[in-house]
Amino acid sequence: MKVNGKHYQTIWLHPDNPAVVQTIDQRFLPNRFIIRDLKSYRDGQHAISEMVVRGAPLIGGTAAWSIYLATIEAQPSNDPRAFIEAAATAIETARPTAVNLQRAVQRMLDALRSIEDHAAWPDAARREAEAICAEDVDFCRRIGKHGLRLIEGISREKPGAPINILTHCNAGWLATIDWGTALAPIYLAHQQGIPVHVWVDETRPRNQGSQLTAWELAQHDIPHTVIVDNAGGHLMQNGQVDLCLMGTDRTARNGDVGNKIGTYLKALAAYDNGVPFYVAAPSTSIDWNMANGLDEIPIEERSADEVAFIVGTDADEVRKVRIVPEATAIKNYAFDVTPARLIAGLITERGVCAASEKGLLALFPDKAPRQ
Amino acid sequence: MKVNGKHYQTIWLHPDNPAVVQTIDQRFLPNRFIIRDLKSYRDGQHAISEMVVRGAPLIGGTAAWSIYLATIEAQPSNDPRAFIEAAATAIETARPTAVNLQRAVQRMLDALRSIEDHAAWPDAARREAEAICAEDVDFCRRIGKHGLRLIEGISREKPGAPINILTHCNAGWLATIDWGTALAPIYLAHQQGIPVHVWVDETRPRNQGSQLTAWELAQHDIPHTVIVDNAGGHLMQNGQVDLCLMGTDRTARNGDVGNKIGTYLKALAAYDNGVPFYVAAPSTSIDWNMANGLDEIPIEERSADEVAFIVGTDADEVRKVRIVPEATAIKNYAFDVTPARLIAGLITERGVCAASEKGLLALFPDKAPRQ
Repeated sequence: MKVNGKHYQTIWLHPDNPAVVQTIDQRFLPNRFIIRDLKSYRDGQHAISEMVVRGAPLIGGTAAWSIYLATIEAQPSNDPRAFIEAAATAIETARPTAVNLQRAVQRMLDALRSIEDHAAWPDAARREAEAICAEDVDFCRRIGKHGLRLIEGISREKPGAPINILTHCNAGWLATIDWGTALAPIYLAHQQGIPVHVWVDETRPRNQGSQLTAWELAQHDIPHTVIVDNAGGHLMQNGQVDLCLMGTDRTARNGDVGNKIGTYLKALAAYDNGVPFYVAAPSTSIDWNMANGLDEIPIEERSADEVAFIVGTDADEVRKVRIVPEATAIKNYAFDVTPARLIAGLITERGVCAASEKGLLALFPDKAPRQ
Repeated sequence: MKVNGKHYQTIWLHPDNPAVVQTIDQRFLPNRFIIRDLKSYRDGQHAISEMVVRGAPLIGGTAAWSIYLATIEAQPSNDPRAFIEAAATAIETARPTAVNLQRAVQRMLDALRSIEDHAAWPDAARREAEAICAEDVDFCRRIGKHGLRLIEGISREKPGAPINILTHCNAGWLATIDWGTALAPIYLAHQQGIPVHVWVDETRPRNQGSQLTAWELAQHDIPHTVIVDNAGGHLMQNGQVDLCLMGTDRTARNGDVGNKIGTYLKALAAYDNGVPFYVAAPSTSIDWNMANGLDEIPIEERSADEVAFIVGTDADEVRKVRIVPEATAIKNYAFDVTPARLIAGLITERGVCAASEKGLLALFPDKAPRQ
């Protein structure tokens, strides 16, 4: 997608130095556009844990490129395979909730497993990381097309009027390699001339909505309005939301969705007001081994500082201020689980399905339990 | 209640100058404890509209004292009655949602109506403002006692274990003259040695939870934890909330409750998880003329700056920073309406009742429609 009119993806190999991977440091958006060099797998692990990058698909992509960096670092090692395995464990545990992370690491290890000569690993790892990222872009584009049909359907009911779509956190191109998951249908609708307007949940505590989603929508001239996380219920009660589109960090086999904290509250309001609530779920986010999301999706607890401090600007200077007194106790759960019963449908790269095992298996029959 | 161990109410007549009313400037808490002089009804009106004071009962009390100030200012006027009426209109329209505001202004005007000699107004107004405030303290104390029984009931089911209570915004003593509405039962439970722990919703955009509720609970050594507004649903799903206690800015005859934006989302989560959701509703907040809250409670829309800027501290200096880029559109609805069907009960000064016309009329039979 575009930054100041120039095309970017969120992560790429340095054009002049194949031992360096580059990414956008999302901690500084929208105030500064900083490109960060990842020179080791530890840099990649750190980028994931410190949220230089975030969003389940991009975490997956960054994990893949981190394994690639590890294959270069492993070359002088006495036991290159042990080095890679240690790197894989470190990367895989950088954050707990997004299944894309473990998925990408395992896929990278699988690609290297049969290659005896470790000198050949970097080339193979590079191809696999590129394939993972290309697949992600493809999945997002397909999700965009399937989701577009939902928007077109609503548009037919109110021709010419803007479709009001509420989203939480950032499930745009910044959360993926390109296009985004929940925002991909919105980008496509806008390109096709369907008037869309996006309600952007601020998304405390890290404000990914007002900092990232608003920024990327503005870069593409898509009308949007920032609201506090508290406001969505009121908007839905008053007919100001036609559709909710959300991302997912981990989708369980039963259709339960682990996503940014607060998603569940919006799903409740959507259900209560008959607003269709859809989750854009590439298959890379689906954990087929998890029968029940509510019981099993691990919920990350992050530092209290994310709640206690906030970054803003004061006369164009970027400043971090404390907004909760030092002595005050804080709990900071980063995700919650939305039960499948509240979800109108999952938008996967293969089409839209009911948020249920049956719905998912109709699109992914190869995941059916063996008889 | 207490500030650094010293007893305060939220508004009082200046001890040495009866032409001045004093109040705590809540815009600067918890960083600074500033007492503000109100020297004219315009000061009072400004204190309400600019949220120097907030909370439906305190807005009522401030309105009463503002009319008192107007009676002093009216003395040299050619037409003192017209002066008071203009003042009443200005005060009454300072904010739209809390019915306590109009209620208090009308009660003050009623007290003055039969007094011909305008020189006698200030004394009468002073007595009436004091009566309104004393009544508010009494109502809050009674709400505390009735709500305490709910907490005692939960405590009997888990003896010795802390009762986890979630609250939104600030419905503590800072929102009233003293004691608070939703927090009054918590203060009483704590005094009686029942272990309580309060989940304090940050409450964007003005952060009255982390700025005011956390501050007043800390002043009384009541265990509490600040969470972002997004987190309550997750806590309720996971059995970490025993009870929700909320305030109200306007309660309709049918039990619908207008309160700080986001209250509705918490009510949905409480209902979905079987957590009792109670609203502390002094009769001064009940609008008997309003049949249906969802249709009729006016929802104030406030300045986008409340969302775009935030006040914090940086090395002990108080700083205001911009957290949403200047070009970004923002909508800022200050309240939402929670339908009665989601509310387990209303805690009034006369006892706890169902959130319904029938429930309310059982406690307030004088409000029944005349046959």
